[in-house]
Amino acid sequence: MHKYFPLVIVMGMCAAGCSPAEDSPQNTVTNSSLVATSATAARSDALVQYSLIAALAAGDYADGFPLREVLDGGDFGIGTFDRLAGEMIVLDGRMYQALADGTVRQADLDSRTPFAAVTFFNEDGRFEKVVATTLEDLDQQLDRTLPRRNSPYALRLEGTFRALTLRSVPAQSPPFQPLVKIVQDQSTWRKQNVRGVMLGFRCPAWVGTLNVAGYHWHFLSDDHQTGGHVLDCEIDSGLLTYDECSALLIEIPQTKQFDNFDADAIKKQDINTIERQRQPAGE
Amino acid sequence: MHKYFPLVIVMGMCAAGCSPAEDSPQNTVTNSSLVATSATAARSDALVQYSLIAALAAGDYADGFPLREVLDGGDFGIGTFDRLAGEMIVLDGRMYQALADGTVRQADLDSRTPFAAVTFFNEDGRFEKVVATTLEDLDQQLDRTLPRRNSPYALRLEGTFRALTLRSVPAQSPPFQPLVKIVQDQSTWRKQNVRGVMLGFRCPAWVGTLNVAGYHWHFLSDDHQTGGHVLDCEIDSGLLTYDECSALLIEIPQTKQFDNFDADAIKKQDINTIERQRQPAGE
Repeated sequence: MHKYFPLVIVMGMCAAGCSPAEDSPQNTVTNSSLVATSATAARSDALVQYSLIAALAAGDYADGFPLREVLDGGDFGIGTFDRLAGEMIVLDGRMYQALADGTVRQADLDSRTPFAAVTFFNEDGRFEKVVATTLEDLDQQLDRTLPRRNSPYALRLEGTFRALTLRSVPAQSPPFQPLVKIVQDQSTWRKQNVRGVMLGFRCPAWVGTLNVAGYHWHFLSDDHQTGGHVLDCEIDSGLLTYDECSALLIEIPQTKQFDNFDADAIKKQDINTIERQRQPAGE
Repeated sequence: MHKYFPLVIVMGMCAAGCSPAEDSPQNTVTNSSLVATSATAARSDALVQYSLIAALAAGDYADGFPLREVLDGGDFGIGTFDRLAGEMIVLDGRMYQALADGTVRQADLDSRTPFAAVTFFNEDGRFEKVVATTLEDLDQQLDRTLPRRNSPYALRLEGTFRALTLRSVPAQSPPFQPLVKIVQDQSTWRKQNVRGVMLGFRCPAWVGTLNVAGYHWHFLSDDHQTGGHVLDCEIDSGLLTYDECSALLIEIPQTKQFDNFDADAIKKQDINTIERQRQPAGE
């Protein structure tokens, strides 16, 4: 198992100005594998995900990764909690939990998550004065304007939202139902004229059912009173910033539940049903 | 862009015995994102892949990642080269190129690869005196004995092979044909009583077409005279060691070719045809 100590030593050597591979003899790597792995990840600007959305869709809701480990992977992102107890929002390094009763609280970092996706948000570009009449409208505008189609993007849209339709789900008890059934009973609510941040990711089609292909948005109001998974939105003048990710790091659960999950049983349509039960915000 | 300097400083702090998250205030991360990202990757023991097998299958053969960067990601693995010029073997930190004329040479590290998969091989377990009459037989035995089904494994089988059927492909010129057509003209050869190492990965079904789901083996003889992609094998008494990977890191090409590739156009069956055109070794 990797320890911190060798990493410290060899990284210390790099303070002299070398990059890890440069001083290696031709066609070999340095003795410490940690130099290179860390350097690769540091360069990566990775979208880091914990488990797979397909495993979540198959009912792997319990335990999962420690929330502190998720914050190790990024300061920005979305996810869920142990037994699906609400929607996760990670913003500026703080983790919030939007519960099914409509309240928002700071997450208890001693808990765990069966699925989360985070990155360290470093702005690569922005669009100002974004106007969107629906979430579909917003997504389509972004499809036309984001630079690449086969790279993941972290997306952050801030402003005063004329309307928002949000949802969250309550904590589940075993035996767990498939997620596609649970979202049929989700709590949804509509807010008007609320200032805050919509944040999430656009994943390329090649992620298949490992993550949500396309857009996945959560919301947190500036006063931290309102949050959830976004089903629809309307905004007059938002500021959208994006961070293009050059790598995808999938952390694999070391649990029996995960090891038993059947990837072939989950179809892309199931993920769409779970994440895209969108409703008009203006009703 | 991330630089090495901050990494050095903060990792140096960890020499005192802390883990990066421990000293953070509740519900925040440390200021330097590099601490956490590097720590996560160092813990990960990741299978690191450069691009996707689906993009390769779609004809994205040119340029790609610098070979030196691949050696940054691992000291063990397999792949191909710019314009599909042979089969890649990375063993003990050295990179070899098995050409279509049956010769093997050390790779020119100034070149690039459109697809490779590597890890730092840290043995997690072993099976001694492995007997297999065919590659299919070997794979089925491993399916019954490897501890997990939804984690990737790096696999290394060394010994004297009674028979081996190998293949390689020659460098391609534009306009590139789909890989499924190119392998119809692959060079194959059969070797008997050759001592060396068969190495590769078993990826779980959930990788879909991002990598080869199931087994993917290359070979290098101890005398470095024989190598290639393994289509079949027979062995009397091999030593198999394995490294279970707890994460999958996908490095995403920043090229126009990659950005244009259509993930939905590549089916799992295409990958099977490309990687599994297996023939009996004993003929």
